[in-house]
Amino acid sequence: MTGRLAIVGLGPGDPRYLTPEALAVLADASDLVGYAPYLARLTCRPDQRRHGSDNRAERERACQAAALAVAGLRVAVVSSGDAGVFAMASAVFEAIEAGGPEWRALDIEVVPGISAMFAAAARIGAPLGHDFCALSLSDNLKPWAVVTARLTAASSAGFVIALYNPRSRARSWQLGAAFALLRPILPAATPVAFATAVTCPEERIDITTLAEADPELADMRTLVLIGSAATRRIDRSGTRPWLYTPRRESAS
Amino acid sequence: MTGRLAIVGLGPGDPRYLTPEALAVLADASDLVGYAPYLARLTCRPDQRRHGSDNRAERERACQAAALAVAGLRVAVVSSGDAGVFAMASAVFEAIEAGGPEWRALDIEVVPGISAMFAAAARIGAPLGHDFCALSLSDNLKPWAVVTARLTAASSAGFVIALYNPRSRARSWQLGAAFALLRPILPAATPVAFATAVTCPEERIDITTLAEADPELADMRTLVLIGSAATRRIDRSGTRPWLYTPRRESAS
Repeated sequence: MTGRLAIVGLGPGDPRYLTPEALAVLADASDLVGYAPYLARLTCRPDQRRHGSDNRAERERACQAAALAVAGLRVAVVSSGDAGVFAMASAVFEAIEAGGPEWRALDIEVVPGISAMFAAAARIGAPLGHDFCALSLSDNLKPWAVVTARLTAASSAGFVIALYNPRSRARSWQLGAAFALLRPILPAATPVAFATAVTCPEERIDITTLAEADPELADMRTLVLIGSAATRRIDRSGTRPWLYTPRRESAS
Repeated sequence: MTGRLAIVGLGPGDPRYLTPEALAVLADASDLVGYAPYLARLTCRPDQRRHGSDNRAERERACQAAALAVAGLRVAVVSSGDAGVFAMASAVFEAIEAGGPEWRALDIEVVPGISAMFAAAARIGAPLGHDFCALSLSDNLKPWAVVTARLTAASSAGFVIALYNPRSRARSWQLGAAFALLRPILPAATPVAFATAVTCPEERIDITTLAEADPELADMRTLVLIGSAATRRIDRSGTRPWLYTPRRESAS
C-alpha cells in the first residue's frame, strides 16, 4: 500500500461550500489529521481514524501527518477555508522541507477550498472586486513592524485589505492600532466590514467606516475587510448596504 | 413570482471544484447569463434560457441580468473562478448602483467559488501561505502607472503577488515590464510560477525564477505567482519542485 498526503480546505463552515473533490479526498483517507473542532465537522466512517490536536500545534500536526503517510497510510490534513491561506498547507511543506528524502518523495495533493475572505466578500457584495491583499494581523509569527509596514504599503498603494487573525484574547490591541495607522492614509468614510463566522448559524456582518470602526466587533472568527478609496457603498432601505470595489480606476 | 439575481463562481473549470451551493443556485435559475464559453460548461435543462455574450460586454451583461431579475425571473450570472475576484460581481454592483430603486431592492446573492489563484497555488504547493496580494496587470481599466506603483509597493513590503490578466494578444509587453520592474527589488532566485488552465485537460505549470521568467509562458488563461524573498523552493527528483511561503517571518 502506498501512502499519500492530502491537505484539504473545508471551506468556511457550511457543507454547501465543500467541493466534490474535497469530499472525495476525505472519503479516500484512512487517517484524518487536524485541529479537533475542524475534524468534528466531518462525518467519518468507523474505519477512519481521527487525530485531533490543539490550534497551536501546527508543526507537530504536519510532522505527524507526513509520518503516517510515509508509513503507508492515506492521510488527509484538514484546514478551515482554503488550506493554502494562513493555514495548514504551509506548515506541511515546512515539515516536508525539514524532513528526510522519503518525505520529499511523498505523493502530496493540496485541495483548494472556499476561503474565509471570499465567503465574507460574497456576503458583503464585491469588496474584493479589484486589487486587494490578504494580511495576517498576528504578530506571533512576524514582528509587528512588518505588519505595520505592510498595512502602510497596501493602503497607500490602493489595495483593499483583508485582515486575517485580527484579534484574539491574547492579541487585543493590534486591530485598534491598525485602524489608527490607516486613518491618516485613507478617507474617513472608507468602508470597513467585520464578517464573523460566515455561513455558520452564528454569522454576523457589521458594515461601518474607518472613522467609526470598533475593534470590539472582531473576535477569533472574524475577517475584517478594509476598502480602498475606490470602494463604494450602496445603501438599501431596511437592510444592510452592499460594498463593492469597481473594476475601473483612475489615477490615484 | 419574485425575481432574484445570483452571481455564481464556477471555479477554475473542472466540475469537481464546483460547490453544492453553486449547483443548487444554478439549478434554481430560469435564466443563465454570462460569457458564452462559461455558459457552455454547464448542463442546462430545456426550460432554462442561456444568454451568452462576449468577453468584454460585462456592463451590458450585468444590466441585462438585473433587468431580467426585476421582470420577475430567477437569474444566475456566471463567472469563472470566484465571482468576486476580477469578475462579474463588481460589474453587477456597478449596474445596481447606477440603476433605479427597483434594482437596489433586488434579492441578490453572491455565491463564492474556488478562485484561479487558490487553484493554482494548490497545484504549486503553498506559495500564498503568508501575506499576499492579487493584482490585475491589465491597463484597460486603470492607468499603467497605478499598476507599477502597486507592484513596487507590494514587492517592497514582502507580499507574494498573484498576477491576474498577465498577458493577452492586445497586451503583450506589460508582463515583461512587470518582471523588469521587480528585478531590482527582489532577489534573482525569487520563485515565479506560471499556472495555465488549472484543472483543465490542457493544464500547464511552469516553475522558474524571477531572473529567468519568460513572459512568453503566459497567455490569457495564465495566472502568474511571484514569490516574496521568504518563499521557499523544495526540489524533488523526477518532478517539478514545490513552492511555499512559510508562516513565520523575521524582520524584512
